[in-house]
Amino acid sequence: MNEIEDYLASQENTFIENLKEFCRFPSVSTDPAFKSGIEGAVQFLVSRLRQAGFPVVDVVETGGHPAIVAEWCEAPGAPTILVYGHYDVQPPDPLDKWASPPFEPAIRDGKLYARGVSDDKGPLMIPILVSEAFSKKRGRLPINLKMIIEGEEESGSPHFEPTVARLKDRLAADLVVSADGAMWRADLPSVTVASRGLVALDVELVGSGKDLHSGRHGGSAPNSIQALVRMLATLHTDNGDIAVPGFHDGVSPHDPLIIDAIRAAAFDPRQYYDSIGAGGPNPLPTGEDLLHRQWLRPTLEFNGIHSGYAGRGTKTVIPSVASAKITCRLIAGQDPSHVVSSIKAHLEAVKPSGYRLSVTSHGPGSRAFSLDPDLPALKVAEGVLEELMGRTPLRVAMGATIPIGSVFQTHLGTGTIFFSFSTSDEDYHAPNEHFRLSSFRTGLIAWARLFERLGGSRS
Amino acid sequence: MNEIEDYLASQENTFIENLKEFCRFPSVSTDPAFKSGIEGAVQFLVSRLRQAGFPVVDVVETGGHPAIVAEWCEAPGAPTILVYGHYDVQPPDPLDKWASPPFEPAIRDGKLYARGVSDDKGPLMIPILVSEAFSKKRGRLPINLKMIIEGEEESGSPHFEPTVARLKDRLAADLVVSADGAMWRADLPSVTVASRGLVALDVELVGSGKDLHSGRHGGSAPNSIQALVRMLATLHTDNGDIAVPGFHDGVSPHDPLIIDAIRAAAFDPRQYYDSIGAGGPNPLPTGEDLLHRQWLRPTLEFNGIHSGYAGRGTKTVIPSVASAKITCRLIAGQDPSHVVSSIKAHLEAVKPSGYRLSVTSHGPGSRAFSLDPDLPALKVAEGVLEELMGRTPLRVAMGATIPIGSVFQTHLGTGTIFFSFSTSDEDYHAPNEHFRLSSFRTGLIAWARLFERLGGSRS
Repeated sequence: MNEIEDYLASQENTFIENLKEFCRFPSVSTDPAFKSGIEGAVQFLVSRLRQAGFPVVDVVETGGHPAIVAEWCEAPGAPTILVYGHYDVQPPDPLDKWASPPFEPAIRDGKLYARGVSDDKGPLMIPILVSEAFSKKRGRLPINLKMIIEGEEESGSPHFEPTVARLKDRLAADLVVSADGAMWRADLPSVTVASRGLVALDVELVGSGKDLHSGRHGGSAPNSIQALVRMLATLHTDNGDIAVPGFHDGVSPHDPLIIDAIRAAAFDPRQYYDSIGAGGPNPLPTGEDLLHRQWLRPTLEFNGIHSGYAGRGTKTVIPSVASAKITCRLIAGQDPSHVVSSIKAHLEAVKPSGYRLSVTSHGPGSRAFSLDPDLPALKVAEGVLEELMGRTPLRVAMGATIPIGSVFQTHLGTGTIFFSFSTSDEDYHAPNEHFRLSSFRTGLIAWARLFERLGGSRS
Repeated sequence: MNEIEDYLASQENTFIENLKEFCRFPSVSTDPAFKSGIEGAVQFLVSRLRQAGFPVVDVVETGGHPAIVAEWCEAPGAPTILVYGHYDVQPPDPLDKWASPPFEPAIRDGKLYARGVSDDKGPLMIPILVSEAFSKKRGRLPINLKMIIEGEEESGSPHFEPTVARLKDRLAADLVVSADGAMWRADLPSVTVASRGLVALDVELVGSGKDLHSGRHGGSAPNSIQALVRMLATLHTDNGDIAVPGFHDGVSPHDPLIIDAIRAAAFDPRQYYDSIGAGGPNPLPTGEDLLHRQWLRPTLEFNGIHSGYAGRGTKTVIPSVASAKITCRLIAGQDPSHVVSSIKAHLEAVKPSGYRLSVTSHGPGSRAFSLDPDLPALKVAEGVLEELMGRTPLRVAMGATIPIGSVFQTHLGTGTIFFSFSTSDEDYHAPNEHFRLSSFRTGLIAWARLFERLGGSRS
């Protein structure tokens, strides 16, 4: 333990209070109703970054929710590290499933519960607090540090890529380290070297100009739900594979290192289904097959379907409109716009005559990401994790989407290491999102060591 | 015109105000939130029936929303007529589609707009106001008149049959005349001699114990929407017929008189689809086929489907629960409970393993109804309509469900004539429900003549 780690330990209660304060801002990016939550989170970060010692802290307009760019580049000869994070959070609904309100942080059993605490407010606070430790104890950082913190990650980062492209000189760095991402098991260190891409679609089907009485019109009028469920049912085969022609065009072969990690993981299918409260298929798939599906295969998932009456009792109505929300996870080689047009073409082809279909995509989507396995900084990060967690980390792929990997590669020519201390079981897109306080502690020390090692010293 | 019809004409403005007052009570029976609207409608009716001259007006407990029984039986030797109607209304949503608020009655273009005005508050007010005309002008009715007005018609009348069974001596009559029902075209008089039955089901499918992140779990976790749409898609064949084994068991041959009416109707398919703002199948079905589907075939209609995220933008969630609401219209010979168990068995059979399914039905449902074509009172009613509307009425079947026909036949041994002045294009289960003031006027005169003719005089 050096003076930096001493400081981090001594400030633990203050840091937890800081994190709780950050989590009180309902910074939901997908819904304009939460505008003031976004503004509050931005103001909080600007103030906390200045307090931590960053001499330059700017709010950058993006065309959507603003990004924050901070710079502290006063270590001549040391490498320049760009840290990425996001201050926006998922919508909190369904509210009635939360044990404590999503924007009133509460500690239970060594975990802090709040919307966004694991994705990504807790992990994002870590490098900021680590910078403060260096500022207070040494007055300087061992590296040149830049940060870019966006506010639209949970809405597919529609303005992030153009912003990075525009600021590419200012953001230029030797390495990107992401505070976003997740370790996939609390008891097993891992480094993410690939993540899936994402496209998001809204489907709306109109059968008639108005809602109709099911007695008068039943049997003769179009039923928008009946047509929509039949159309959506054609998107997968009986065994759950995606049945859309063209969807898989261009997919690349799998990285053999990831296949090795899947074998090493000894993933238990019964335990997996139990953990999510599901029965699972009969017979159960193997653990390897399940990880394969989570990491290496694309998906087409329904996130919402809505039409007609939802109240108690019955309403004998034939609804005029039915709609569904779909997101797809993409793997290396798939082009997001081609995936969107393949789904559109498929739905148009299976649409019964007389219905009006609209399929709209949210933003351009993002390609899958994969990191160069020979990047030297990857070894440094793995070394820190092994010291602190007592095991060689696995190199894993990630089912979720972090579009920044390919954005930074494209515009800065820089690889990204995911160094997040969130864990994938922390319900980060569901009710009762939480963040382990033990991960918060380990993360603070890990980031401090990472900064020192990347700066060239062996603390 | 006699003094009764003079009185009805002179009171028109007052009667319209009465009807507007009745429509201001939001007497939605399916949703407990509208309890005070139910109470208000009951009080209004009790008071208006007394004002009309009924010596006996009782509020009858049913186990659900109360019914009202009124009696005015002071015409020795004349037949006893039981009039049926209901004071409850459909839910008003979607509220944003109403041009004027659903419980603030407004007249536009000779039509009164309000939730429930066509189904059934307008048609129900007519026999009450006609009774008042006889009371004011003659001090007596030409018939013995009983009324039973229920408050649960729009929720499938769960307590109506036991109530009629319990009160069968008190309700005994020579004929039932229903103020509920509908003429199917404004320019063509018709008498309904058959109506479809109804069963209502809620389907709920649970895939996992909680909502899951579609990145982490996509591809491996059960998606309740994906499974539900695939299950629901098996309920119909490609050409829209019902594909549930056992569903059609017991159906009776069609009444040839109704087939004749279908031919005579010259139903125009293009005009039909235009009227509901729908493109219609390609090629278009024939008009005869469409009427066949509306009157003589059973249906299985989806009235609602709901799961997951419905807000703006996207939420990358795999929803744990998906649910749907279904109603089926039944034809003569189908047993409601057998239909429910056939659908349950079918859904269980197509459910993928690992999901939990629940299918619950709302009440016992109701059988289809058909009237004895030789009933003498039917001729009387047809004669009145022919006088007033200038054409021989068609004997038609009704796609919608009026369970009372079979209830009165079973418990009172009495046939029911549907003598409603609502028209089937009045959006009675949709936004902007309305009632033609011209139908209100014609209805008042028609019911006055019906009472006189049934009482034996030829006014």
